[in-house]
Parts: sequence; structure tokens; C-alpha cells
Amino acid sequence: MKAHVTKKVLSEGLGLLERVVPSRSSNPLLTSLKVEASETGLTLSGTNLEIDLSCFVPAEVQEPKDFVVPAHLFAQIVRNLGGELVELELVGQELAVRAGGSDFKLQTGDTEAYPPLSFPSNADLSLNAEELARALGSVRYAASNEAFQAVFRGIKLEHHNETGSARVVASDGYRVAIRDFPASGDGRNLIIPARSVDELIRVLKDGEARFTYGEGMLSVTTDRVRMNLKLLDGDFPDYERVIPKDIKLQVTLPATALKEAVNRVAVLADKNANNRVEFLVSEGQLRLAAEGDYGRAQDTLAVTQGGVEPAMSLAFNARHVLDALGPIEGEAELLFSGSTSPAIFRASGGGGYMAVMVTLRV
Amino acid sequence: MKAHVTKKVLSEGLGLLERVVPSRSSNPLLTSLKVEASETGLTLSGTNLEIDLSCFVPAEVQEPKDFVVPAHLFAQIVRNLGGELVELELVGQELAVRAGGSDFKLQTGDTEAYPPLSFPSNADLSLNAEELARALGSVRYAASNEAFQAVFRGIKLEHHNETGSARVVASDGYRVAIRDFPASGDGRNLIIPARSVDELIRVLKDGEARFTYGEGMLSVTTDRVRMNLKLLDGDFPDYERVIPKDIKLQVTLPATALKEAVNRVAVLADKNANNRVEFLVSEGQLRLAAEGDYGRAQDTLAVTQGGVEPAMSLAFNARHVLDALGPIEGEAELLFSGSTSPAIFRASGGGGYMAVMVTLRV
Repeated sequence: MKAHVTKKVLSEGLGLLERVVPSRSSNPLLTSLKVEASETGLTLSGTNLEIDLSCFVPAEVQEPKDFVVPAHLFAQIVRNLGGELVELELVGQELAVRAGGSDFKLQTGDTEAYPPLSFPSNADLSLNAEELARALGSVRYAASNEAFQAVFRGIKLEHHNETGSARVVASDGYRVAIRDFPASGDGRNLIIPARSVDELIRVLKDGEARFTYGEGMLSVTTDRVRMNLKLLDGDFPDYERVIPKDIKLQVTLPATALKEAVNRVAVLADKNANNRVEFLVSEGQLRLAAEGDYGRAQDTLAVTQGGVEPAMSLAFNARHVLDALGPIEGEAELLFSGSTSPAIFRASGGGGYMAVMVTLRV
Repeated sequence: MKAHVTKKVLSEGLGLLERVVPSRSSNPLLTSLKVEASETGLTLSGTNLEIDLSCFVPAEVQEPKDFVVPAHLFAQIVRNLGGELVELELVGQELAVRAGGSDFKLQTGDTEAYPPLSFPSNADLSLNAEELARALGSVRYAASNEAFQAVFRGIKLEHHNETGSARVVASDGYRVAIRDFPASGDGRNLIIPARSVDELIRVLKDGEARFTYGEGMLSVTTDRVRMNLKLLDGDFPDYERVIPKDIKLQVTLPATALKEAVNRVAVLADKNANNRVEFLVSEGQLRLAAEGDYGRAQDTLAVTQGGVEPAMSLAFNARHVLDALGPIEGEAELLFSGSTSPAIFRASGGGGYMAVMVTLRV
């Protein structure tokens, strides 16, 4: 096996694999990646047993032969090479990596012992990769990294086939983040682990994301990569139930101004009391207030106010407010149903994103 | 006390203090800073008991009165404020911080109980601040952060009054970094803790650094700040002894090319064997080689070679080589006195910087 490949495309491919392949493992083979050589290029594959990832790198290849190499060392070596063209050659049990004045000999692993990774060639459904990535990115924050209940560590993907749309939902039990986006086809509902979603977002660029449904598994194929994602079992909580329907007061203001003001007053909020920040709405003003061991903070913002109630006082976790505002650009719309019932934060004028948050006790 | 001050200058001053004042301490007063108000401005002072730092901030002040506030909270609040002008007002036991729609009330501390900080007004010596900062920054890497012997955790400053120059020296016992720079006046030799040097470098910009010698202490005054640095006791090792005088082989090559090549081969160097990289010089070539559990690396660079010996083979810690090359721009000159005796790395054509390194056993 002898291959010539540009440093840039090989580095990019290895960069994607490096994020999935663990750098340490009780099974050392898992820290390696498998390279399948064909006449037209190299297919790099790796797995962390939650995600299988495969990526094709165009190359000029002579005498194709598969091999297994330590993923992170190989990636580091290629990244540091001088020159634009890299030569790879299998010499006995070693892979030679050459460029400019550099000559590396890297030990290869046992190809037979490497776990077999297979990726489907058919597709059940096709989504716009950019839309999907944006939707997943908007709700990711609301999934928990530690929650005891596994479903709170996942993101639910729902297909509303009748309305031609899809929805992603994440929740940690205290808040729900939702984003709808257009999608056609006959999709299934499923829950993807949030950590796998992070990697999925990273590989989704433009073009299409083709879905293939498997047993407890979703395969996603794009122009550049193929990915198998292990799914989470279990029932996602009935989040529709907590979305308030009866909005009593509503304010509109620039999202950036609100983010900055919450950031400011949160400095003095009590870390041991959920970073509590009070929201007081009345007479076209939103007053934010926080209090802690070292003093008190107050900030006043002008808002456009609507609804049947003339004034309301609520309290939120400042961190949750900032998270909820994250995906909102331009004007933010805050919909309040009462001091002790959940509130909705969304972009004024729609866009499909909505955050639902519990209030802290007054 | 009521003061008006621009957010920018107040933020900058607090930013300097924030680095010195600890965010946690068994003595909570140490996490505060003292503000001395005068008609023309505010003097902010803080200490971590190793370094006292003071910084003047121009402001319009009415009814001057001193106060003590939590340093990090105050800095964070000011940094997050909207608007360019900040109003400070002492209201009872609280400091009001106001700007735009924001109104903060910060608890103040006991001014009487705050440790008295005094800075000298006379100066014994004056150095160019930029030269001093560059010199200290060039040798800082060679000081140890953990060495058992305190002097290895310091940087020695020598005044060679007869030649009108000064020298900074750092060593961890395996390597020595030296930089000479022009200095006039009648200075003393002293050892500054490396961690204090980090802060000193940060406050030294252009202009003059005025030195005042005290009992176990050095005071440095610039246009912006005043600083007291506690000095290290003890005898700095006789580093002159390890500088090789009898150079047998000498190579010159671009510093960047050498850094890149060492970085490359170091990927495969054995972490448990001092990141060992071999240097083999012969026939106008420098060959670098490294070997570890996963393979072997080799890189060849063209060099200009001189000296009485036609070839030499040595080994270094790759990390130390990269550190030593750090301050060298343009061409690097490597001076070898033998396979088992120390080597010198310096910038070709002088500049006052020199790194001396032990070789690893062949």
C-alpha cells in the first residue's frame, strides 16, 4: 500500500475521527482507527462504542491494503508535517508517513481484531443538514449531562409527518427547549444521547443528512461522513403538558440588552439560591433585581408590554435565563402565565424556537 | 464620597488588581481592595502578601473618603456595566455603583482592619521598562514552579555596574536561561520569585521602571502602578561554571524550521524518557530522531556548520529545546562542546539571550 494525499484533506478527516476515538481505553484497539484503502482514496473509521464514524479522504493509492494505526498520534503527526503532499506506505508492520524532510514509522495494529464497523447504504429519509444542526444546537443546552434519568441526557427528535415538520426537544426537568424546523418524509421519533448530538452537530455542514433507521440505532450519512449513533431507550416526558397556554402578561425587548442586564445583576446573585434573579414587570419597564451576601443589584429596561395583567413579579435562575436567550437574536418575547407557573421565552416573530422555564418560588 | 470615573480606566485598574488579589483567602479582608479617594482620583491597592500592588485611576471626586470592597465582585460589576461613565457613591456601609439603568449596592469592609500598604516615593535606580520586561519574559521559562530549592523558583537580577548592563538569569538545575540588557546606575543583585515576575512583566509597558531597594523587598514604580515585591533569600547557583567555553561544533539554521521539526518528531518521543530527541550533525545536515512505543520519527534539516569537529551526536529533552528556542527569532546558533557536556542555544548575531542545556545520556 502506497498512497499520496494532501495534508489538508487528510488532516481534516483525522480531525473529525480524533473527536470520537478515545485517547485512552481499556481496549487499546479502540484508540486506533481503521484505514481502508481503495484505488480512489482512504476511508478512515473509528468508534467509541456510542458513535461509529467514517470519513472518506480522496488519495492516489497503489496496491490498496487496509491497516489500523493509533488515531491520535497519526493525526498529530500529519498536522505537524511541513509541505502539502503526504506519502503513506505500509512497510512490514509499520506505516511510513513522509513529507518534506520528515520520515515517520508508525506501528500498525491488528486489522483482524479491530471491531467490524458497518454503515448502511440505503436511506429512509433526508433532512437539510444545516437546519438539523441549527435546531439541535439551539436546544442542546437544556439536556442534562448528569441527570439520573437517561432520557434527560438525550435530545428527542420528533417527526410531525402530517405538518411536514420535525421538532427537537431537550429537558433537564426544570426547563424545556424546543425547536421546530421543516422536514418532509416519513420519520420516526427517537432519542439521541446529547453527547452524540455534539459530535453530530460538528459533522453536519451544508447539503443533506440522510437518515437510516436501525435496531436501537440511527445512521446519518452526509457527503463527507457516515455515522452510526446508538439511541437512548425510554419514554421522553410529556413536555407539552408544561407549556403554558394561558398567557397573562407579555413583554418584548432586545435579546442582547436583556442578556447583558441579566449577566450584570447575576454577579451579585446568590450561587447557593439558584442564582436567583427577580423579574418585575410594570408600566412598560422590566426591573431585574438580585441579592447575595455581598450586596444588591438592580437593572431597569424599557419593554413593550401586553396582556391582561398590568404587572407581575417572578423569579428565575439567571443561568437558565441566559441559556434560554442564547439562540434568540433580535427581539425576545417573554410570555408569563403567572408568578408560580412556567414562562416562555422565544424570538419575537417566530422562528420555531421556544424555551419553557419553571419560576423559582417567590 | 461620590466619584465619576470612566468605565474603561476603572476597568483597566481593577483588571490589574484582580490578578494579584486572591479570590479566596483564610483572611477575607485580603480578597478586598482598598480605595483611597482624593480630589483628583482613586488609588486602588491590594496585596497577596507576596506582592503589593497599587494603581491610580483619574476621577472626579467629591467629599473624598477611603473604603474597602470585595475586589473580584467590584471588578466584575464594573466590567459588565453598560454606558461609559460610572458613578460611585458611599451610602452608609454600602458602595453604590451606577451606570445606565444599573444600580448596584456593594457591602464595604473595615478600612481600619485592612493591612497597611506603603509604597516608597524615592527611587534608587531607573531601568527601561520595555527592556526589563523583555529580558524577564525571555528567561522566565527556565525557572521552576515546584523545585524544592527556593532559588530555582526565582529569577536572579544582576547589575554589572562596571559594564553598564544588567542580566537576568533563571535555572531549574537542568538548564540556564540568561539575558543581558543595557542598564545604568548602581544596582544590587537580588532574586525575585518567578510568580511575582509574571505579574511584574504584566504591568511593565513602556516608560521607566524605577527601583527602590528595601529590607528583603524591591519596589517598582511605573507611570501607572506601584508594586512591592518580596524577594527570595539564598544563594543563586554559580551558573557561569556550566556555560561551556570550548565550542567544538557549531550550526546555524532558521529557528522556526528547527522548532517545527522538533515539534514534529517529539510526537513519537518517549514521555517517560525525558521526551528524548537525538541531534545528529554531519555534512551540513542536522538530523533529528525520536523513538517511542508507537514508532520512530526522523527529520532532516540543512544547516551551516562550523567548528573543529566534523560530526557530533547528542540528545536533548524536546520540551527543553522548544523552551530554549522560544525567545529566538530569525537564525538560531547551536554551540556544542561535546556529546556529554552542556550546549548553548542563542540567536545568531547576539541580542543578549542565551540558553544553556544539559544533554541527555547517549
